[in-house]
Amino acid sequence: MDQDITDTRPGEQRAELAPAADASLRFIGRIRTPFLTRDDCPRQGRADGPVCRLEIDPPWSAALDGIEEFENLEVLYWLHESRRDLITQSPRSDGRTRGTFALRSPVRPNPIGTSRVRLIRREGSTLVVRGLDCLDGTPLLDIKPDRCEFTPQAAQKAADEW
Amino acid sequence: MDQDITDTRPGEQRAELAPAADASLRFIGRIRTPFLTRDDCPRQGRADGPVCRLEIDPPWSAALDGIEEFENLEVLYWLHESRRDLITQSPRSDGRTRGTFALRSPVRPNPIGTSRVRLIRREGSTLVVRGLDCLDGTPLLDIKPDRCEFTPQAAQKAADEW
Repeated sequence: MDQDITDTRPGEQRAELAPAADASLRFIGRIRTPFLTRDDCPRQGRADGPVCRLEIDPPWSAALDGIEEFENLEVLYWLHESRRDLITQSPRSDGRTRGTFALRSPVRPNPIGTSRVRLIRREGSTLVVRGLDCLDGTPLLDIKPDRCEFTPQAAQKAADEW
Repeated sequence: MDQDITDTRPGEQRAELAPAADASLRFIGRIRTPFLTRDDCPRQGRADGPVCRLEIDPPWSAALDGIEEFENLEVLYWLHESRRDLITQSPRSDGRTRGTFALRSPVRPNPIGTSRVRLIRREGSTLVVRGLDCLDGTPLLDIKPDRCEFTPQAAQKAADEW
């Protein structure tokens, strides 16, 4: 990180926190993007943004089976360079102080990023996608069919029986 | 959990995993819903579903400041009753085997649920919302403005200057 952990801008409040210990994550792979520094990262991913790659580690490759049925996916990742102690933030872009939960800033108590991406193709244990805005090398947490596209089977069945 | 951790249905593959230790989460509160058992939970939340409550723990109450500007929020939570070892799954609803990442099942290597909810009102450190499908008592991880509604300030500025 490029600032001391306790630095704040005007209006920002930080929490004194015990180490996080309520649950543990297991990285399932990593994200390859063309964004090598935080200044390179766009503020939000775009469906027509650059091609990026989701590289899945063993043993999770077979967990991709069937994913080609979906055009849009939800991707969860760990914003590994983010501090986690800010309760309110004054973003550099406008300086207006708001609560952390009223922002999509990477700085959050649990720095989990979520993006909706378009699936271009699967290449073995790698997915080629567009729509990400995160740093190259970001650890990957989860991939799911986008909720707008996913119709639970049970609901379909009920509708058929109607 | 109501089944032994190593049980599988036909077609399911499980991973032998070391304990998860790549990153740690801090619960920021809990979700109160009318769903007391997994059988009570709908397959997917609905914008006209029942009223639920997001109860935020200290010191994060001020992190909600400004959230009333948004009609729709993204909520992340920890699916605390989920096993984490299945690579492929054969859902009870249709028995068809698919990869874990081709399903929105709560069973995943990192059991993080995401929902889009409608904000009804804020009551101090509680948000009253509709659109959730999770168990009463589910630990809360994060709340963000929904990405469809959130316009980053920097992008707005660029558009204004155009």
